[in-house]
Amino acid sequence: MKPKQKKHTPGVNLNDLAPQSLCREVIENIFPLPDNLLAAATAKMDEKTKPLGALGRMEDLAIQMSLIQNNLNPQIQQKNLFVFAGDHGITEEGVSAYPSEVTPQMVDNFLNGGAAINVLCRHHNIDMKVVDMGVNSEFLPHPDLIMKKVAKGTKNFALEDAMTKQQMIMALENGMTTFLDSYDRQAIDIVGLGEMGIGNTTSASAIICVITGILPSQATGRGTGVDDKSLAHKTKVIEKVLNFHTIDPGNGFEILQKIGGFEIAGIAGAILAAASKKTAVVLDGVISTAAGLVAYVINPKIQGYLISGHKSVEKAQESALSHMNLTPIIDFNMRLGEGTGAALAIDMADAACKIMTQMASFDEAKVAKSSITS
Amino acid sequence: MKPKQKKHTPGVNLNDLAPQSLCREVIENIFPLPDNLLAAATAKMDEKTKPLGALGRMEDLAIQMSLIQNNLNPQIQQKNLFVFAGDHGITEEGVSAYPSEVTPQMVDNFLNGGAAINVLCRHHNIDMKVVDMGVNSEFLPHPDLIMKKVAKGTKNFALEDAMTKQQMIMALENGMTTFLDSYDRQAIDIVGLGEMGIGNTTSASAIICVITGILPSQATGRGTGVDDKSLAHKTKVIEKVLNFHTIDPGNGFEILQKIGGFEIAGIAGAILAAASKKTAVVLDGVISTAAGLVAYVINPKIQGYLISGHKSVEKAQESALSHMNLTPIIDFNMRLGEGTGAALAIDMADAACKIMTQMASFDEAKVAKSSITS
Repeated sequence: MKPKQKKHTPGVNLNDLAPQSLCREVIENIFPLPDNLLAAATAKMDEKTKPLGALGRMEDLAIQMSLIQNNLNPQIQQKNLFVFAGDHGITEEGVSAYPSEVTPQMVDNFLNGGAAINVLCRHHNIDMKVVDMGVNSEFLPHPDLIMKKVAKGTKNFALEDAMTKQQMIMALENGMTTFLDSYDRQAIDIVGLGEMGIGNTTSASAIICVITGILPSQATGRGTGVDDKSLAHKTKVIEKVLNFHTIDPGNGFEILQKIGGFEIAGIAGAILAAASKKTAVVLDGVISTAAGLVAYVINPKIQGYLISGHKSVEKAQESALSHMNLTPIIDFNMRLGEGTGAALAIDMADAACKIMTQMASFDEAKVAKSSITS
Repeated sequence: MKPKQKKHTPGVNLNDLAPQSLCREVIENIFPLPDNLLAAATAKMDEKTKPLGALGRMEDLAIQMSLIQNNLNPQIQQKNLFVFAGDHGITEEGVSAYPSEVTPQMVDNFLNGGAAINVLCRHHNIDMKVVDMGVNSEFLPHPDLIMKKVAKGTKNFALEDAMTKQQMIMALENGMTTFLDSYDRQAIDIVGLGEMGIGNTTSASAIICVITGILPSQATGRGTGVDDKSLAHKTKVIEKVLNFHTIDPGNGFEILQKIGGFEIAGIAGAILAAASKKTAVVLDGVISTAAGLVAYVINPKIQGYLISGHKSVEKAQESALSHMNLTPIIDFNMRLGEGTGAALAIDMADAACKIMTQMASFDEAKVAKSSITS
């Protein structure tokens, strides 16, 4: 790696986009959650036959779903999950325990129904599709594959920008249309966002460093399973990347273009599109969360629609979630990605809605209340 | 409360029971998990298309289910959950935020399908029954109610033994027959054990203190939601209880008789019966876990069949789990009881079995393995 120090080349701004562009239209059509139902939703939950707060995170989920659907009887019927896949030029720097060929091999595994995310989506009756955002391979058409390839992998962002400005906008819009096309066929109540891309924890960690200000040594995890020596190397690569690029931490477009990935941009686009349709969005592990963080930088009004599916073993995720004021639903000690944590959390959200709609109140059940008023 | 210091009255021992008694027969027919499949089950999980260990606790669950079923393709078809209910004389000491009347009121709520555990069992297709072990009320027959009442509540164990030796054996055997009668009609693959009983966190905390040696101040939690002053009072009550009784921490029968509850004894009996049938047992919160701990003291061979459904907010649970070398599946910040954490964990175990049986191996999916060997 011999990076040359470059001058700051400013990124795209929202105003640079044509007013009629899909990207701009979606971003400008996101409205924060209304807070007029918060008191009523909280009161309804507190009237259920259980001690106050005794259902823990499930209560938060039920209340959030009520606000998202603007309805005290929230329902989840249509559950979707998209696995966005892309390859990464940064793998040239030896940051992953797996070779890049694993990205297309895993896409085939998804299409054949043999990956963990397939098993969990079948188990929870979640409609799952794979999105080729930029895998370095060609795939035959398949009913579960959505073709959105921008290019066959990003450039090595230790040496140059990961993608061009045009590619970045295309990737965001491809993510948006992935969600919107599905939504147009069948309204979606909750969507999980997973990913596959060898090398993508390096991109995600670098993104989280830029936005939250944590150091690479605080952000770097073992990804798919690198050892101590490789972990130190991965940290050094991210340090060099952040020295090489000058990036405005307030410009999500610029972050994606310089150090992002096609699948990460695709997820960010899908999140923005889902928020524009008032659909609950379940983030997965550190990569999905990094994409959520970029979308949040692009438009913080998405915050109320975001659910953090699970606590990843990757430590950068925590900084990203804290930046967005999100708390993960489950700690299952998982670090697989693909959307596996999101799939489990989607079912939790489904159960939480049923708690809100089916559980009796103290009055309905004629159960005496606590003598403790607090 | 004016307890008199009593001399130690020794409890029942296994040898005191008639050789043909159900209780003795069940306890003597429990065999530890075979460990001959551990290597093969672990190897099968490690060959799945994911980084080693990336599915976290779900991998442990899948391997445990394989050992319990002695089969590398474990399956969960029949899922049962029993909510054992009973009243507690110790409520005379003012240890709960709710009046005792709430126990029968909640039983009615369970039978009407309006409690949290009803919602979660319906959601996860778990066959749920309520067991009246000792509620201070009469119930009309109901298809979801199993009548196993020993007495209308225990005695106040701050002043005397919670129950007689005969009642203790009857409660254990009623718990055993609850499980065994259901099992005889339809073999059960996994069973969750919940409870309802105002005052029962006090019994559970005292039990955990006796067995693990922790102090009441380390064991006492807020139960259904007592405030600071009541928490200090509850701690003091448990301290007095433990000063009043002399209890052999190695005698589970004696522990149940002196400071237990009918629903706690019922759960312990059901656990022993389930282990005798090689059925996976999912413990719930602190009360269910305390019952598991007593069963473990009675026969430690049950250990391999036990799954801790979720991490309770009640801190005594952690000491009990650590004593049995168990780790909870989920941390959902819940403290409701009823079996709610167990219901969620039962579904996790179901999903884990599907991971074991449906997920492709690296060879099957033709995916390259990690370059890291460790």
